Amino acid sequence: MIQSRFRLIPQFVLKDEDGNDFSWKNLLGRYTVVYFYPKANTPGCTLEGLDFTKLIDEFNGNVVGISPDDCKAIASFKSKKGLKVKLLSDPDKAVAEQFGVVKDGKLIRSTFIVDPWGRIRKEWIKVNVNGHAEEVLQEYKRMIQEDQALNDNILLRRALRGVRPDPVEDEKIETLIKAAHLAPSCMNKQPWRFLVVRTKENLEKLHSTLSEGNYWMKHAPVMIIVYTDDELGCQLSDRRNYALFDTGTAVGLLLAQATQMGLIAHPVAGYDPIKVKELFEIKGVVITLIAVGYWGNIDMLNEKHLAAEFSERIRKPVEEIAKYI
Amino acid sequence: MIQSRFRLIPQFVLKDEDGNDFSWKNLLGRYTVVYFYPKANTPGCTLEGLDFTKLIDEFNGNVVGISPDDCKAIASFKSKKGLKVKLLSDPDKAVAEQFGVVKDGKLIRSTFIVDPWGRIRKEWIKVNVNGHAEEVLQEYKRMIQEDQALNDNILLRRALRGVRPDPVEDEKIETLIKAAHLAPSCMNKQPWRFLVVRTKENLEKLHSTLSEGNYWMKHAPVMIIVYTDDELGCQLSDRRNYALFDTGTAVGLLLAQATQMGLIAHPVAGYDPIKVKELFEIKGVVITLIAVGYWGNIDMLNEKHLAAEFSERIRKPVEEIAKYI
Repeated sequence: MIQSRFRLIPQFVLKDEDGNDFSWKNLLGRYTVVYFYPKANTPGCTLEGLDFTKLIDEFNGNVVGISPDDCKAIASFKSKKGLKVKLLSDPDKAVAEQFGVVKDGKLIRSTFIVDPWGRIRKEWIKVNVNGHAEEVLQEYKRMIQEDQALNDNILLRRALRGVRPDPVEDEKIETLIKAAHLAPSCMNKQPWRFLVVRTKENLEKLHSTLSEGNYWMKHAPVMIIVYTDDELGCQLSDRRNYALFDTGTAVGLLLAQATQMGLIAHPVAGYDPIKVKELFEIKGVVITLIAVGYWGNIDMLNEKHLAAEFSERIRKPVEEIAKYI
Repeated sequence: MIQSRFRLIPQFVLKDEDGNDFSWKNLLGRYTVVYFYPKANTPGCTLEGLDFTKLIDEFNGNVVGISPDDCKAIASFKSKKGLKVKLLSDPDKAVAEQFGVVKDGKLIRSTFIVDPWGRIRKEWIKVNVNGHAEEVLQEYKRMIQEDQALNDNILLRRALRGVRPDPVEDEKIETLIKAAHLAPSCMNKQPWRFLVVRTKENLEKLHSTLSEGNYWMKHAPVMIIVYTDDELGCQLSDRRNYALFDTGTAVGLLLAQATQMGLIAHPVAGYDPIKVKELFEIKGVVITLIAVGYWGNIDMLNEKHLAAEFSERIRKPVEEIAKYI
């Protein structure tokens, strides 16, 4: 199952207004509003159904109303009132119970926004129907807009050098490693390897392998040696070395995670790989060293690097790297 | 400069209570509360200063108060009241103006939480001091906790196969490519290349290259051919092929972005790379095909793949891939 920090929808199956099955799987891959209402044809529930119906196109048709009424009752409610929402029958309130909206045997009018992964991203418990559908729509649109935007951790990440010597707890580095370790890999071989260097003695050993231009890395409280080897990953036809590629994917996730955590994570290639391998008894390919630490130690940078810290990012025009056919 | 969807702090320099410079750069790499107050030694401003002082350790010492008072006035205010916040003098309200908290020449009592990248993540304009410091602390802690957690896009991403044929707009694919293209690369060579396949004819051509086990990809409305070549990236000593590694990093960012957008993005290795290159006139190494689309088309999966869709994720124990020295 999907793992998430959000609550996931329960795995339910109910009958709809036509007596057909409608399950939690129907919610996957869409942004859906799921609302619970006490009883078909009563004034509040009618108003709520009509209000969602008015806005149904803006919800891309994805509004589902659930009540304890039987299939016949919801079918008649739907046709009589001209509702355009999907109605489901939850006669014993079992699904309402799973969503946590039953109290002392009574259903509490409630609304949820479920995202394409089945995560409950927003909930309203004890709903007052006046203006409610409109409020849900605003949040629905806001959520989609936010999700569809370029992720800020990806947007703002850059190869910053002004790293402060202040310590970074092992716990935080462990989170970075966890993020990397969740990358996909060919045949799930997980070819990435990380040696986290953070004692003074070991950092100094590693400093001796750096190229001159990487003087700034000596301020980093943590450096991660990233390595792999051909046989740790798939080696497939036509020069497809997945040890290197998959390790790159893992590092991509690590960088996004670090940025979210407010940490510089700057991978470099300017070091003596043979010397790193000798000093730290590593075999294989040392593909990068990543300096990790907090930003703000700007004064130690040379003129060129200081300018780079606040310069525009340089990228090839996107047409050079991507084509659509 | 950092690019972000959030407003960034203005680039200010002010004098502190000791007459020393304190600049926006001092805020980088930390979570800081910046609050504007109208006048030292008045009752409201004293209460606010004392309340932040009481909680100063929980704010990790990072609370900065700014007012139009001169340095002498803030120095005396600080020592007389025993304040432990950093005070800055903004005599002509120029910085208050940059933060947008001056109206009709008057400073509006306001508070900001600034994150390690200098992003203004939360603001309170027209503050009532009663209970304010405590409210700011709750938000400060919540934000840090959220930022330090494993990113949900990384946590929930998995190699899902139940892709629906529903179209995915080019605009969304362009966002995926933008995310990938913001990856770092050795010498900024940007060796990644993407061929986005989404017409029926071209998709069918690509289907002919798939291994049998990748039958499910034929439902995807978009497939991205990811390729590179040795000379597009750095080739450094000791087998360091950055064309492949950097392309992997770009794909890592693409996967995180897709997950945020509610899209499956599943990279595979099961295809005939020579045939892909012939059919689409590509040179180099076709390192992966990524199927892109919305989730929920579960019924077309074979038994093994259906089980995989909802199984636990399998990863080596973290001790096997990471060591701390």
